[in-house]
Amino acid sequence: MKVFNFSAGPAMLPKEVMERAKNEFCAYGKSGCGIMELSHRGSEFTEVIQRATSNIRELMKISDDYAVCYIQGGASLQFAMVPLNLTSEKGIAQYVDSGHWASAAIKEAKSFVETEVIASSKDTNYDRIPEIIPEELAEAASYLHITTNNTIYGTQYHSFPETGIPLVADMSSDLMSRVVNVNQFGIIYGGAQKNIGPSAVTLVIIRKDLAERLSRTIPTMLKYKTYVANDSLYNTPPTFAIYMVALVTDWMKAKGGLAAIEKINDAKSEALYERLEETAFYKNPVEPASRSRMNVVFRLPSEELEEKFVKEAKTNGMIGLKGHRSVGGIRASIYNAMPLEGVETLIDFMNSFEEKNG
Amino acid sequence: MKVFNFSAGPAMLPKEVMERAKNEFCAYGKSGCGIMELSHRGSEFTEVIQRATSNIRELMKISDDYAVCYIQGGASLQFAMVPLNLTSEKGIAQYVDSGHWASAAIKEAKSFVETEVIASSKDTNYDRIPEIIPEELAEAASYLHITTNNTIYGTQYHSFPETGIPLVADMSSDLMSRVVNVNQFGIIYGGAQKNIGPSAVTLVIIRKDLAERLSRTIPTMLKYKTYVANDSLYNTPPTFAIYMVALVTDWMKAKGGLAAIEKINDAKSEALYERLEETAFYKNPVEPASRSRMNVVFRLPSEELEEKFVKEAKTNGMIGLKGHRSVGGIRASIYNAMPLEGVETLIDFMNSFEEKNG
Repeated sequence: MKVFNFSAGPAMLPKEVMERAKNEFCAYGKSGCGIMELSHRGSEFTEVIQRATSNIRELMKISDDYAVCYIQGGASLQFAMVPLNLTSEKGIAQYVDSGHWASAAIKEAKSFVETEVIASSKDTNYDRIPEIIPEELAEAASYLHITTNNTIYGTQYHSFPETGIPLVADMSSDLMSRVVNVNQFGIIYGGAQKNIGPSAVTLVIIRKDLAERLSRTIPTMLKYKTYVANDSLYNTPPTFAIYMVALVTDWMKAKGGLAAIEKINDAKSEALYERLEETAFYKNPVEPASRSRMNVVFRLPSEELEEKFVKEAKTNGMIGLKGHRSVGGIRASIYNAMPLEGVETLIDFMNSFEEKNG
Repeated sequence: MKVFNFSAGPAMLPKEVMERAKNEFCAYGKSGCGIMELSHRGSEFTEVIQRATSNIRELMKISDDYAVCYIQGGASLQFAMVPLNLTSEKGIAQYVDSGHWASAAIKEAKSFVETEVIASSKDTNYDRIPEIIPEELAEAASYLHITTNNTIYGTQYHSFPETGIPLVADMSSDLMSRVVNVNQFGIIYGGAQKNIGPSAVTLVIIRKDLAERLSRTIPTMLKYKTYVANDSLYNTPPTFAIYMVALVTDWMKAKGGLAAIEKINDAKSEALYERLEETAFYKNPVEPASRSRMNVVFRLPSEELEEKFVKEAKTNGMIGLKGHRSVGGIRASIYNAMPLEGVETLIDFMNSFEEKNG
C-alpha cells in the first residue's frame, strides 16, 4: 500500500530524492564509498556543500551581503544564539508570541537579554497571527523576532512586519515553501526537517554585518562568524544531512523553483480548507487570514471520533495525522514533499469518514 | 575495484551496516517510509534510539550512575560545554596538551575558566603522550581533561591518569575501539564519525551528578542536564545519525563486543608498525609507547615520494592516506570498520612501492 506521511517533522522527503540517495548510498560518484564515509574536506563533499549553497542562493534569490550557514542544534539552539550574538548584556530584544515555539524562543532569550513581547495571541489560544501595533516597535531594540509558521496551531504569517530594526524569523516549518524577500530579514533560520531535508542541520541565512555584532564571550560554535568565516566547515559538519539538502534543492529547481512550489502548496492547502468549510463535522479553529499552508489543523465532534479518524486513516495508508499532544485534534502537515495526490486521498477519506460517522 | 578508505573521519563504516541501511532506506520496517522521514517521537524511532543506547551500555559496561547522551555540534562544542557545565566562574580546570585538538580544547576553555596545562608534549612536536607528574594534579581543580587519541600525530593513551577529580576524556577518535573502564571517567565524549557512525552526532557519557553541577546561565541546548532529563529528545535529534549508531553498535555486538574488536584493531596496527620497523624507507616519528592503534603515521624519504605514494595508492584503491596538512607525510586511519584485509593490501602496496622507489 502507498503510504502518505502527514508527520509534522521529521517529515516525508520527495520520493525521487529518497530513491536517488538510496541508489548512491554505498557508492557516491566514482569514489567507491558512501558520501557519509568521505572526508568533509575532500573534493566530493566540497562539491556537495557548494551545490547546496548555490541552489539555496538561487532559489531564494539571496544577495551577496547574506551568508548561508549550516549549524547544528536545531531552532532551539538558535533561540540562544540570536540574543547572544545580536545583543549586548544591556540590550533589549522584541518578540511576537504566536505559539509554543515562539514562546520557547522568548523564554530562552530572557536568560540573556531584556525581552519585550510586543504582540501575542495567547489569549485566543494562538488561533491567529497577532497584529503588531507599529507604535510598539522600538528603534532601540536589537531585533524583532517572529515565528513565521506555527505547526501546533496551524497559523502562518502571510505578510511580514515592516521594521527599522533587523527582523529575525524562525522559519523552521515554512522555509523554502514559498517566495519570500530575504532582504526584509536580518536572520532567517530553520531546522531542515520539514521542507529541506532530514533533521541534523539548521539552515541560517544571515546578513553578514549581523554576524559581526558579537560583543559577548560565547562558545566558538555559537558564534555566527565562525560559520560565515569558514563556510560552515570550522569542524566536521553533518555531511549526510547537507548532502540531502543538496538533493532536495536540486529537486526544487527541477520543480520550477519556489514560485512553482508555492503554487502547489497553495492548491493543496486550499483544497483542504475548502473541504473544512463545507461541513460542520470538521472544524478548523484558526482565524481565516492566519491559516497555515503547511499544517492544516481541525477538530471532529468528539475526541473518540478523532481517535477513530487517526486509526482508520492509518489503516488506509495515511500516517502522522494526530494533532500535537498539547492541543489534540487532527493535524495534516503538507510540506513541499507531500504530493497533491496525498491531499486528495486524505479528502476522499474525510468524505467517507463523515458519511459513516456524521 | 574494491576501495579501502583510510580517511581520518568521516570514515568508512562497516560494509554490512551500509548495505542494511541502503536496503531499508526508503522503507523502514513496516512503516512504508524511510527512518529519516519518521517522527522522532514515533514508535519506530523510539525503538531505534533505545536500542542504540542499550547497545552502547552493554558494549561499554556502563553503570546506572552514567547517562548516555546524543548531542550535536561535535567535539568542538564539548570544548565549551565541559567548562561551562563543570566549573564556576572562579573555578580552575586542568588540561593535558597532547596535540592539535587538545590544544583547541584548552584554548576554548580559557574563555570560561582558569586553565592549567599540567603536561604537554608540544616541545617534541607531539610525538608522545606527555607524562603527568602526580604532584601537578590539584584537588582544587574541577576536572582534568585529556585527549585519548591524537589523529594528526598518531599517538594514543594506553593507560589513563589516576586522579581524585573527574577525568574528562575527548575520545573522538578511539571511542568504542577498545575496552575502557568507564568508571575511571567523569565524562567521555566523542564525535561518532570515526568508529561509531556518520558525522552529526556526538556521544557523551556522563556521570549523572556532573550534569547537576551547573552554576552558570547558559543556553538550554548546552546544559548536559537537558539531555539527561529528556533522554536526548528535548528537541529533534539527528535521527538518521542515531539510527546509524544503532546499526553500527548492532554490528559491534555481532563481532563479539569491544574486547574482540580491540583484538582485531591491535592486530591491524601491529602489522603496520612491524612493517615500519623493518625498513629505513618508511619512518614512524612516534615514541613507541605512545603509538596509536587508530592512526598510523609515517614519513617517506622525501615529500615528492610521499606525494607519489598517495597518488599511486589511490590508483590501487586505497584512498584518504594523505597526512594532515599541518604535519604532512602519510596517515593510515584504521578504525573499527577497516578490515584486516585493507591493512594487508596497504602493506603489500608499501612493499612494492619501496622495491620500486627505495
